Amino acid sequence: MSCDFLALAQPGVQKLSPYVPGKPVDELARELDLDPATIVKLASNENPLGPSPKALEAIKAHLDELTRYPDGNGFVLKSKLAERYGVGVEQVTLGNGSNDILELVARAYLAPGLNAVFSEHAFAVYPIATQAVGAQAKQVPARQWGHDLDAMLAAVDGNTRVVFIANPNNPTGTWFDSEALERFLSGVPERVLVVLDEAYIEYAEGAELPNGLSFMAAHPNLLVSRTFSKAYGLAALRVGYAISSARIADVLNRVRQPFNVNSLALAAACAALDDQAYLSESRLCNSTGMRQLETGFKAMGLDWISSRANFIAVDFGRDAAPINQSLLRDGVIVRPVASYGMPTFLRVSIGTEAENARFLEALRKALGH
Amino acid sequence: MSCDFLALAQPGVQKLSPYVPGKPVDELARELDLDPATIVKLASNENPLGPSPKALEAIKAHLDELTRYPDGNGFVLKSKLAERYGVGVEQVTLGNGSNDILELVARAYLAPGLNAVFSEHAFAVYPIATQAVGAQAKQVPARQWGHDLDAMLAAVDGNTRVVFIANPNNPTGTWFDSEALERFLSGVPERVLVVLDEAYIEYAEGAELPNGLSFMAAHPNLLVSRTFSKAYGLAALRVGYAISSARIADVLNRVRQPFNVNSLALAAACAALDDQAYLSESRLCNSTGMRQLETGFKAMGLDWISSRANFIAVDFGRDAAPINQSLLRDGVIVRPVASYGMPTFLRVSIGTEAENARFLEALRKALGH
Repeated sequence: MSCDFLALAQPGVQKLSPYVPGKPVDELARELDLDPATIVKLASNENPLGPSPKALEAIKAHLDELTRYPDGNGFVLKSKLAERYGVGVEQVTLGNGSNDILELVARAYLAPGLNAVFSEHAFAVYPIATQAVGAQAKQVPARQWGHDLDAMLAAVDGNTRVVFIANPNNPTGTWFDSEALERFLSGVPERVLVVLDEAYIEYAEGAELPNGLSFMAAHPNLLVSRTFSKAYGLAALRVGYAISSARIADVLNRVRQPFNVNSLALAAACAALDDQAYLSESRLCNSTGMRQLETGFKAMGLDWISSRANFIAVDFGRDAAPINQSLLRDGVIVRPVASYGMPTFLRVSIGTEAENARFLEALRKALGH
Repeated sequence: MSCDFLALAQPGVQKLSPYVPGKPVDELARELDLDPATIVKLASNENPLGPSPKALEAIKAHLDELTRYPDGNGFVLKSKLAERYGVGVEQVTLGNGSNDILELVARAYLAPGLNAVFSEHAFAVYPIATQAVGAQAKQVPARQWGHDLDAMLAAVDGNTRVVFIANPNNPTGTWFDSEALERFLSGVPERVLVVLDEAYIEYAEGAELPNGLSFMAAHPNLLVSRTFSKAYGLAALRVGYAISSARIADVLNRVRQPFNVNSLALAAACAALDDQAYLSESRLCNSTGMRQLETGFKAMGLDWISSRANFIAVDFGRDAAPINQSLLRDGVIVRPVASYGMPTFLRVSIGTEAENARFLEALRKALGH
């Protein structure tokens, strides 16, 4: 009789339910015997434009180096990010996607007896990363689907080491403004690390949404996390980064795996950062597509949460699972968000005009319109 | 006055000294103002042949999918590995390099109050991953530079949860045979997870070296870790894997980041696994190069540790640092191993015939021959 290696695992690990990603196109094609080319996936907030040509060129230029380890320090990409944002290279931490950044924070700063505060209807990785290291995940009820920053502040106690906030928030698309962020940061004890997840900021920054980096000087306990997976269109390659005080970056870099970001990702991210035309096109495609979906929802008499990201949560006022099943049968993948406490919603990523139209058509069918 | 975010980090993290990788070519080029194309890097046990043409083709075929997240389950690669090794898909865990596998084990099974046993002169990531989660790293003195498996067995105590062994071992190149492995596995308590690191096994498997996978049926506490970074030539892309009981794999997959392996890595690894011609060529290049270096060392009157991997540790009988400096000035990067308790050695990766010749020439110069 062999030992039970689940029972031998750390208590926090035993209780983990792994993150459930958007259903891959190939998986649905296998399940329903569909042609993958006919499937529309609006489930993972991916950039519908296809990759930046400059990123593709950069990858091709580095293909002869596949046998070599990546630069573990990410010198070129870190220098480029530091220059772009006017911070020191020593303030940048690279991650294998920003998911990696969130985990580095949890592993460095959380442990049994400590807790992390985050909002209801927020990214599933906040509680997963927290529980994986045996710390307590303190979820604070949302207000109108968005962060209730005052309640989050009130939830911070003597054992809180990390607060995760997202602007805009996934999967709701909700956001807060400069004033609300400043009030929140001024209220958080300085020994608590505030992780501001700006995975979707490139779609949203402007008059309404603050740039988190501009709050860093006044609040050394602030870490801003960003990604190349969304507006920069490189989800396949896994590159995210944190900008923080040099001291926090030093700690995260101790925990970071030495070659966490692969070579092609480093090269592509550098090129993508320079391709501002692609970024502008991505924003335009997104705002146009958002209007297209809102117009479609309105025509069907549906409610939705106003969003500043590249997705929108639409409310059916009843269990959304059957509607999701109908969409799947029609080869349209969106994201059920029942596990986010939103069983009457589906989260739909903004696609191209044609993809959005395919989705709206399938939705009309699903609703019997 | 802001808080000290080093002091606020977990105790194990505070004490971490990050892994020091081989010096990148670009870094040496910048430091010494050398042309990167003239630099020979034999420092990171990389495959000197350049990538498999089949892996390159597979990457090019997947470039239009960069905006999409990887398949978080790695369905195709896991199926291929399972078929190749005659195990179930549910026994495979994919890692962002095998470094990731080692860390997943530590995070799942180690914590303060527990310990991991490993050998002196073994891979630096064993103690780093152990200390990062606050567990005790129990290093056991080596015997003739290799694992003293009997002493390691004796070091296992009631708080030991993991033993790391490597065959062949890095940075020494030493190895143990089937009989020694069987004796060791039979002696280890079944509640202790044995991680057999076979990162270099493709260079070495044969009459002398056992295939760890064939011991799995009899020893459900055995996990075999392998990588595509060495003989398969994909270090840049970061793909490793573990084969273990389904129960252990389930636990590791709970801790694993959902998209830890990127899409191009998944595609390239599948293709590399099919390119057995490349693997044969890699082995041949390695055995030929190993003889070339041994002949060169013999001619210079140097000692070395007999190696079954794709590197060789050469002993100068005195501080090797000045010799390393001389090699660097000549544009040849090898690996100092003083931090591995081997200050009189340098570890040299086997290169192409021309690279090995360049190294031997620079070494003769460094030694004043």
